[in-house]
Amino acid sequence: MATAGKVIKCKAAVAWEAGKPLSVEEVEVAPPQAMEVRVKILYTALCHTDVYFWEAKGQTPVFPRILGHEAGGIVESVGEGVTELVPGDHVLPVFTGECKDCAHCKSEESNLCDLLRINVDRGVMIGDGQSRFTIGGKPIFHFVGTSTFSEYTVIHVGCLAEINPEAPLDKVCVLSCGISTGLGATLNVAKPKKGSTVAIFGLGAVGLAAMEGAKMAGASRIIGVDLNPAKYEQAKKFGCTDFVNPKDHTKPVQEVLVEMTNGGVDRAVECTGHIDAMIAAFECVHDGWGVAVLVGVPHKEAVFKTSPMNLLNERTLKGTFFGNYKPRTDLPEVVEMYMRKELDVEKFITHSVPFSQINTAFDLMLKGEGLRCVMRMDE
Amino acid sequence: MATAGKVIKCKAAVAWEAGKPLSVEEVEVAPPQAMEVRVKILYTALCHTDVYFWEAKGQTPVFPRILGHEAGGIVESVGEGVTELVPGDHVLPVFTGECKDCAHCKSEESNLCDLLRINVDRGVMIGDGQSRFTIGGKPIFHFVGTSTFSEYTVIHVGCLAEINPEAPLDKVCVLSCGISTGLGATLNVAKPKKGSTVAIFGLGAVGLAAMEGAKMAGASRIIGVDLNPAKYEQAKKFGCTDFVNPKDHTKPVQEVLVEMTNGGVDRAVECTGHIDAMIAAFECVHDGWGVAVLVGVPHKEAVFKTSPMNLLNERTLKGTFFGNYKPRTDLPEVVEMYMRKELDVEKFITHSVPFSQINTAFDLMLKGEGLRCVMRMDE
Repeated sequence: MATAGKVIKCKAAVAWEAGKPLSVEEVEVAPPQAMEVRVKILYTALCHTDVYFWEAKGQTPVFPRILGHEAGGIVESVGEGVTELVPGDHVLPVFTGECKDCAHCKSEESNLCDLLRINVDRGVMIGDGQSRFTIGGKPIFHFVGTSTFSEYTVIHVGCLAEINPEAPLDKVCVLSCGISTGLGATLNVAKPKKGSTVAIFGLGAVGLAAMEGAKMAGASRIIGVDLNPAKYEQAKKFGCTDFVNPKDHTKPVQEVLVEMTNGGVDRAVECTGHIDAMIAAFECVHDGWGVAVLVGVPHKEAVFKTSPMNLLNERTLKGTFFGNYKPRTDLPEVVEMYMRKELDVEKFITHSVPFSQINTAFDLMLKGEGLRCVMRMDE
Repeated sequence: MATAGKVIKCKAAVAWEAGKPLSVEEVEVAPPQAMEVRVKILYTALCHTDVYFWEAKGQTPVFPRILGHEAGGIVESVGEGVTELVPGDHVLPVFTGECKDCAHCKSEESNLCDLLRINVDRGVMIGDGQSRFTIGGKPIFHFVGTSTFSEYTVIHVGCLAEINPEAPLDKVCVLSCGISTGLGATLNVAKPKKGSTVAIFGLGAVGLAAMEGAKMAGASRIIGVDLNPAKYEQAKKFGCTDFVNPKDHTKPVQEVLVEMTNGGVDRAVECTGHIDAMIAAFECVHDGWGVAVLVGVPHKEAVFKTSPMNLLNERTLKGTFFGNYKPRTDLPEVVEMYMRKELDVEKFITHSVPFSQINTAFDLMLKGEGLRCVMRMDE
């Protein structure tokens, strides 16, 4: 490639300050260093996590920063030591990595890579502690190792999943975070049996992906739980058979669910991160075999409380991170599920805007409108 | 049998009042009614649960009562509708049953039978709400459906596991409660892999059985946790490689365990029932793959508290009841493990006394001496 080894000037959306509209402007993107890959981003979606760290409420503020982590792109050039990828490969950047060498990567059960596990406070590359983005020589910080709100970005090779080049990047880009998180929580962790009853707490994109997983697994009754009754109509497209709004009941929602299912649901997946919902999701599963899976990220001070008898009566409580998918090993297969039409990704993409209108995507998410807004980088 | 259909007069140890020495005296044992079996008990052991309900602290007092639930015997006669057992069959009575017909019995995952699940407050047969024991016409209450501190007792057919008649009842009698509870917690629920690290909280009979399970599963490091340092020597016979006394440390024991295992143990099994130990057992397991299994029964008011981040980092928390063994389906196979010499039962039996000295067995347990005391009914 003509650009390999050189600084690339391109458009990026820079967050200069917490909560202020992003500014699309020209940035310089340095060549990839050892174990790094420079990727041309074609499509990027917006996820709640981007908004959360843009607002930076209760978080360490890291600005100026290029956010973005749900995306699809093509390898432009690779740094020293990168043998797994070559220019032209289609990739999904992932906010958490897989070094394939640590105890976690070597364990069949874990995707919490010691080296490349998500780090929301770090704004630089792990190799040399520097940023690859500058504007007029001034460094601009990275975000979760991906920074996909840029036409070009530099990513550690361990945070890139190589996927089928036939897969349409404008669709499968949304598989690099939220959709896989919810889907994997159900398919890999909750593992509902055919004909079972599953409750999903929180009907945003992650919750609906968890619901889609329940439908794919053959659950016969899927109960959506959300404080917003407007969510039910949309959820029906994802297999929702019953809807419960905790606000409609005076008793705790776990009791409502236990009563309506004659003893409890077989599986529950919690996608809100609210501690009361976490406790309810656990306490609504059936004794003897019920499994509750926590997905939503709680406040730092939150405390999970329950009677230990709920556990001794043979209930299981688990948490998951990125749906227990190992990014490089497993994500290509999630893309194949889409290619085989086993997984419908289109229905998660409710909006699409040119990259230049990225602030519109933020507005939509802040208003709670739609599920995923995909931005087209070339517009 | 000459005794079938008739009242049998025999010796039983009667608990007339909470905490008062048992009185071995003659009782009348009525014939078994529908779905019941009268069993001649040959050997019975003493378990903490007997002592707990004999002391009846904080429990509903049910007296006069015939305690006892860890035992081995032979079927004397059967009531109407009993087709699975015939006189002469060797059986282990179990404090919780398996009707084979409810949702739990039909689930592969649960042993919490709806019909015959343990009920510590009920002192009568479930068929007619009557006791089968009398002294001079006055009813004496049953205990957890077994009441094995009697030469003859009447038990629901669903609470009897038919075992290999070649198995020595003076040994395998201890498999009908505590040993199977601990063993199953490890083998059926924690499921440690070969070469893994396992922590066992509480080194009584149940904890040592859990430890034996870890050894059988091929765990390479087995850490015993107990407040009594004298427990270490005995625990070595069960595979204990390291011993931690929480009293020897100023920091919480979960931190001690995480440090000594470079991030946490692979599996933890909690056998004390103390809420702090439960929380420690969960918080000492490794992120990514750690599984904690709760066995010990807590106080009614206890609350399990932890940061939900401990769960989201891919730890699993489960509880188990009777080691997840289905009494009738699975217990015969545990006996076979002993017969094949895969499971060493003898080392759990530290004492043996004639039935007439049952109060000695209580004294030993109250002093914390030994593991299991087997009583010989014919002496």
